Amino acid sequence: FGSQRVLVEPDAGAGVAVMKFKNPPVNSLSLEFLTELVISLEKLENDKSFRGVILTSDRPGVFSAGLDLTEMCGRSPAHYAGYWKAVQELWLRLYQSNLVLVSAINGACPAGGCLVALTCDYRILADNPRYCIGLNETQLGIIAPFWLKDTLENTIGHRAAERALQLGLLFPPAEALQVGIVDQVVPEEQVQSTALSAIAQWMAIPDHARQLTKAMMRKATASRLVTQRDADVQNFVSFISKDSIQKSLQMYLERLKEEKG
Amino acid sequence: FGSQRVLVEPDAGAGVAVMKFKNPPVNSLSLEFLTELVISLEKLENDKSFRGVILTSDRPGVFSAGLDLTEMCGRSPAHYAGYWKAVQELWLRLYQSNLVLVSAINGACPAGGCLVALTCDYRILADNPRYCIGLNETQLGIIAPFWLKDTLENTIGHRAAERALQLGLLFPPAEALQVGIVDQVVPEEQVQSTALSAIAQWMAIPDHARQLTKAMMRKATASRLVTQRDADVQNFVSFISKDSIQKSLQMYLERLKEEKG
Amino acid sequence: FGSQRVLVEPDAGAGVAVMKFKNPPVNSLSLEFLTELVISLEKLENDKSFRGVILTSDRPGVFSAGLDLTEMCGRSPAHYAGYWKAVQELWLRLYQSNLVLVSAINGACPAGGCLVALTCDYRILADNPRYCIGLNETQLGIIAPFWLKDTLENTIGHRAAERALQLGLLFPPAEALQVGIVDQVVPEEQVQSTALSAIAQWMAIPDHARQLTKAMMRKATASRLVTQRDADVQNFVSFISKDSIQKSLQMYLERLKEEKG
Repeated sequence: FGSQRVLVEPDAGAGVAVMKFKNPPVNSLSLEFLTELVISLEKLENDKSFRGVILTSDRPGVFSAGLDLTEMCGRSPAHYAGYWKAVQELWLRLYQSNLVLVSAINGACPAGGCLVALTCDYRILADNPRYCIGLNETQLGIIAPFWLKDTLENTIGHRAAERALQLGLLFPPAEALQVGIVDQVVPEEQVQSTALSAIAQWMAIPDHARQLTKAMMRKATASRLVTQRDADVQNFVSFISKDSIQKSLQMYLERLKEEKG
Repeated sequence: FGSQRVLVEPDAGAGVAVMKFKNPPVNSLSLEFLTELVISLEKLENDKSFRGVILTSDRPGVFSAGLDLTEMCGRSPAHYAGYWKAVQELWLRLYQSNLVLVSAINGACPAGGCLVALTCDYRILADNPRYCIGLNETQLGIIAPFWLKDTLENTIGHRAAERALQLGLLFPPAEALQVGIVDQVVPEEQVQSTALSAIAQWMAIPDHARQLTKAMMRKATASRLVTQRDADVQNFVSFISKDSIQKSLQMYLERLKEEKG
Repeated sequence: FGSQRVLVEPDAGAGVAVMKFKNPPVNSLSLEFLTELVISLEKLENDKSFRGVILTSDRPGVFSAGLDLTEMCGRSPAHYAGYWKAVQELWLRLYQSNLVLVSAINGACPAGGCLVALTCDYRILADNPRYCIGLNETQLGIIAPFWLKDTLENTIGHRAAERALQLGLLFPPAEALQVGIVDQVVPEEQVQSTALSAIAQWMAIPDHARQLTKAMMRKATASRLVTQRDADVQNFVSFISKDSIQKSLQMYLERLKEEKG
């Protein structure tokens, strides 16, 4: 089930697999990592013995730093289009998965990392002040796509989403719980065990009833992207190709290099 | 105004009627009970002296156990269709009623009982740990219809509804208040008096302004069913007729008989 | 930037202007005042040095008493149509402004005053029990338009909006914060300074990213009015012209005169 960047610890007996992100240094969602995630998810969905998956990081400290900016900077329009389709695909597959998905957030969870967490049925965050969660795209001068806005709005409501998205807020654990972007905050060492007991609660429900209900709740939001996928890709390509955007991404990447240097 | 299964205590002077459910043993929404409820409601709506109705149970301990499973098990497709139309009709009549409706929840309030409560303008729950409220359909392997999902989502928000519906959660009083599925929790002996003072607050508003505002808030949700009523009936009939569903309902009914035996 | 009824204190260096309502006695939204507000806003939007505006009252105690009832009573249908277009225009301009708008609510904020506050990005209310905020139209026998209902629903959610609108609730500070109709409640003397620090937080975000995100969040709500503006005007004119409505407005105006007398 796993791959180089996606470790999978299957427990067929319990019907649960733990999917660990391993794309050092910060589990950025590169094109390869996105593709491996979708393949692993598909394999688990096709193997009838699995009913639930826990998503977590193999390296505590960072759940996922989000989209890989090097895929969105200094590349061709065709590359941007291919990359954005892969981001859409991951969201669509996770958001509409028939599996129970629980994210065990054992590290920082900004932007694309938050995208992954928001697709899950249940979100558990380690109570560590360094582990913040949110959609901070505007801090980098870019914006979240409408379907990610919809997912956030479905989770924390219109007003909170309006403020969080415009300010690019990253919520530390207590605020994340209070605004509702996570469902539970537990001591770091209990994140994995809490995820196991949470997933058991969801798996106690007959699958077909739970899946039909999940589809009823999420269909309208998913269809909004499905019916405009190409337009959304064109929109992303034209936005990311703007000189001003390329310049701000370039500056941000250089700053990251300096900080690492 | 009343009938065998629906006792009505009219107070024309105050413009308020108390409607007491009396369909022993647990106020299950049988075809007859559904029909009597709609008739009583219509009589009160047509009598200009009544502006508000309190819905409660004649037998504290159970508000309403919800849909009558014997109407959904081992019957003909035509019966299922007729039964589901009656369930739709009750929801449409209550949800769009021009009367002020306050539910004084003096007993357990699962599934169809919760449907009745959610149509009201205001919900008061007795502070008794045995009196839980929620849409627990998935626990029985069945699912709530989209229009009941919409009503719950309008009441407690998308995220809370997504979790409550998939897990089939039944909320005890403190949690019911916290998630917003009820508006007030009071000691059991104060439920009826609280309902009377609550309904007075709503009746202090000029009827036409309150009714136009209520219609503005609820029209879109009601129309979603009105425009797809037949499809919703077909959907129910085909779902409930499935062998797997009939088997799980049959098992549940037998378990109920054993528990009663 | 300012005018007789709209004082503007520009701080071009900070990119912030403070707009003070000065339409004594209670900043009622008369036709002139509505028109001056839109003109001042437009001037500030067209002057590239301004990125944020604080809306407040020149006369603490009343932020704005809302629509000017004398514009809606004993006038011609054409007058009512012209007046309602001006109300729509103010809402559309404020709600979709590219500027950061923060309302520093230093007085009572019912009905139309609440309309103005709800269009802003951020709302700060002085902690004074006399300063209540809400849409109390039904208390006067009239109703809020659908687009104002949508704005309230986007801010506090469907259930809270359904109850607040039908009952015409006016929330004192603590309840206003709890229901989410304001974002912050501070001692009266700190309202203006809090507004300045709040607007700085919003202005720290690159304008184009913030503006695109704001548009993404608000476009659907604004378009609902834009696509039905004339019908909404006709609806208002026919509603306000009803004898029963004219009578209740007349009585309310007389009561106001007596209270002032």
